[in-house]
Amino acid sequence: MTAEHPIPDQLIAEMTAKARAAARVLALATDAAKAAALKAAAAALRQESQGIIAANALDMEAGAKAGLSAAMLDRLKLDEGRLAAVADAIDQVAVLDDPVGDVIDSRTQPNGLVMRRVRIPIGVLGIIYESRPNVTADAAALGLRAGNAVILRGGSEAVHSNRAIHKAMVSGIVEAGLPADAVQLVPTQDRAAVGAMLRAQGAIDMIIPRGGKSLVARVQDEARVPVLAHLDGINHIYVHKDADPAMANAIIVNAKMRRTGICGAAETLLIDQDYPAPADLIAALLETGCEVRADEALMELDPRTVSADDADWDTEYLDSVISACLVGGLDEAMDHIARHGSHHTDAIITNDDAVAARFLAEVDSAIVMHNASTQYADGGEFGLGAEIGIATGRLHARGPVALEGLTTYKWLVHGQGQTRP
Amino acid sequence: MTAEHPIPDQLIAEMTAKARAAARVLALATDAAKAAALKAAAAALRQESQGIIAANALDMEAGAKAGLSAAMLDRLKLDEGRLAAVADAIDQVAVLDDPVGDVIDSRTQPNGLVMRRVRIPIGVLGIIYESRPNVTADAAALGLRAGNAVILRGGSEAVHSNRAIHKAMVSGIVEAGLPADAVQLVPTQDRAAVGAMLRAQGAIDMIIPRGGKSLVARVQDEARVPVLAHLDGINHIYVHKDADPAMANAIIVNAKMRRTGICGAAETLLIDQDYPAPADLIAALLETGCEVRADEALMELDPRTVSADDADWDTEYLDSVISACLVGGLDEAMDHIARHGSHHTDAIITNDDAVAARFLAEVDSAIVMHNASTQYADGGEFGLGAEIGIATGRLHARGPVALEGLTTYKWLVHGQGQTRP
Repeated sequence: MTAEHPIPDQLIAEMTAKARAAARVLALATDAAKAAALKAAAAALRQESQGIIAANALDMEAGAKAGLSAAMLDRLKLDEGRLAAVADAIDQVAVLDDPVGDVIDSRTQPNGLVMRRVRIPIGVLGIIYESRPNVTADAAALGLRAGNAVILRGGSEAVHSNRAIHKAMVSGIVEAGLPADAVQLVPTQDRAAVGAMLRAQGAIDMIIPRGGKSLVARVQDEARVPVLAHLDGINHIYVHKDADPAMANAIIVNAKMRRTGICGAAETLLIDQDYPAPADLIAALLETGCEVRADEALMELDPRTVSADDADWDTEYLDSVISACLVGGLDEAMDHIARHGSHHTDAIITNDDAVAARFLAEVDSAIVMHNASTQYADGGEFGLGAEIGIATGRLHARGPVALEGLTTYKWLVHGQGQTRP
Repeated sequence: MTAEHPIPDQLIAEMTAKARAAARVLALATDAAKAAALKAAAAALRQESQGIIAANALDMEAGAKAGLSAAMLDRLKLDEGRLAAVADAIDQVAVLDDPVGDVIDSRTQPNGLVMRRVRIPIGVLGIIYESRPNVTADAAALGLRAGNAVILRGGSEAVHSNRAIHKAMVSGIVEAGLPADAVQLVPTQDRAAVGAMLRAQGAIDMIIPRGGKSLVARVQDEARVPVLAHLDGINHIYVHKDADPAMANAIIVNAKMRRTGICGAAETLLIDQDYPAPADLIAALLETGCEVRADEALMELDPRTVSADDADWDTEYLDSVISACLVGGLDEAMDHIARHGSHHTDAIITNDDAVAARFLAEVDSAIVMHNASTQYADGGEFGLGAEIGIATGRLHARGPVALEGLTTYKWLVHGQGQTRP
């Protein structure tokens, strides 16, 4: 493929032109047609499972030779069970409500003009991701469900798996009557192709990076195309003085330790200086095996804590580590979050509703929670059916982004010959 | 001021930090407080009108010396009547519905978690504009009404006018109890300050350029901050074979000639080859003094037309000139628009509702119209009360953008101690 397309910019230009043509067809596809295409894609994945697993074995073998970590190999691995889950997830996206065509508002002016704002697909999405081959299916399904053409650029570790999954999905999509170019996979692993996607203003309408911080940082730094993403999830839990201690202990342990590697995991614990049971909170974390990096005041409560340094307050551990400090009250807690937070998810635990209301109003994050675990920061848990990711930017879509975030709108105006005076 | 701030990046960093602090206050300001601040700003403009007009006289004098065109001097000029209109416009923004706090959706999950999506201000807006001093007041009023802090960078021709208007508005805002830093005017005319604003990712949340194409193009090319704008308004009117000729003539003349310099003006006329009265359409335009640059087929209809060249189909004239050609039908018309349009406003004239429905669904523009003049492309005409501009991008806000487009949202989650299984 690289021989045919020596210049990645030319390759991406060709792919985006085909994607735009497909997007014009997809924008007019009915809800039923898009759902049928996804069901056919899921069926094709199931039918081709042996071939996909064989392709994945090639990637696993190459990965082992290349010395990938056990964690990376686990992310890469597909087996019957995991592939069935991927296909099931596509079926679940197929039955989600189609936002396209929804009338957001409708107004009739005194002169008789009728203005309607109607949801439409965004157009062409670029998905740039790393080693998890299931993203190939997930991202394609969500993009297509909302009527978008999708250009996928997966990681080189998963190249055989991604090609096999992509091929199967496209066969289903075509069988269901939608264009093959609805979902395209960048055929080269040349990293310059990523740069070409990031510069494709007007040809790609939105880029969604799925992967680790270095990938997201590169995409955000280089992109001239709008990016939907979050860089960090430095999420705080503030335990107010009027928090219920049993609730506080349970939420902290869950928010930090349920899964430490997800972006909704808590990374910093702020304990009010008047909270009655701070030692129990620290002990609850320590007893789950969590390292607690504490300020001096908290270190005195438990010799098992270690000393936090300045960098800890700005660190997303994604591990069994938490930073913790005492704060003088609600305002100091909110100031800490304003200085160190990443606008992802922050929570307060309190039985004082007025204090909670201030926290929810004043903390400037995509998701703010009262008496709940930050690990609920997830589109599925929000009832959105699925998510393409969580966004911490301020425009377009924030927090968990599902199908609606993959649409935009246009204004339709109906007149009877009106001319403007 | 430039002596105090030799480095524009440092100046902008200081201004954006103050703006962010003001934005935190504004985000919590009530509807009544924001309305009162705008009324006080309008009152202050009226009270200071003599001083503002005197400041404007300095700009007019300098402009005349510098050889500004009559059109530019007219844009620059303020007199009692124009200043009264500026103040009245602020009062009109003051009484618009406040979108902040609107609950966009609310969902209760089976586990008892309540998720609400609530409108909030975007934060810090940067407005970059040219010679019209009224933009100082308009943009500040709209930004503030939606709870945003605003950083204004006006054109050097209007520097005295802008400073006088800004000073009066801030005195009103402060008198009403909102922070002075809610509306800041960049004190230097150093063009590097514009570059610093465009690079201020995370410090300025959205840039809105207001002015001619070269300004918008520079902003779009250089900005690392999201931009809300349109570059061109290459708007088409397709006269279908089943159009009513009297309606078609009236709409074309209005869409082209009512005001030729606005972005909603029609620039290209596509006439169906089976439309019965094309010569009347061309004649109607010619008789208003419009130059018609036509393809060969249309040129044969009227010797007063001139020949269009390739560039004409991609030109926004903003003048008494229109390009015109015959097309073979709906599909050819839509293909022409897809190739040459700017995704701003395109219209069809027809009595065939099925044809109109296809045009409205398939033409990929922010505004698509049926049997109405493209000159209605305006937030006021859409019933939005006012507009900060018209956007042709695909994300966040499209078409006429008013207060809602100057907001974003956050997710508020209320629990009773839920932890994620």
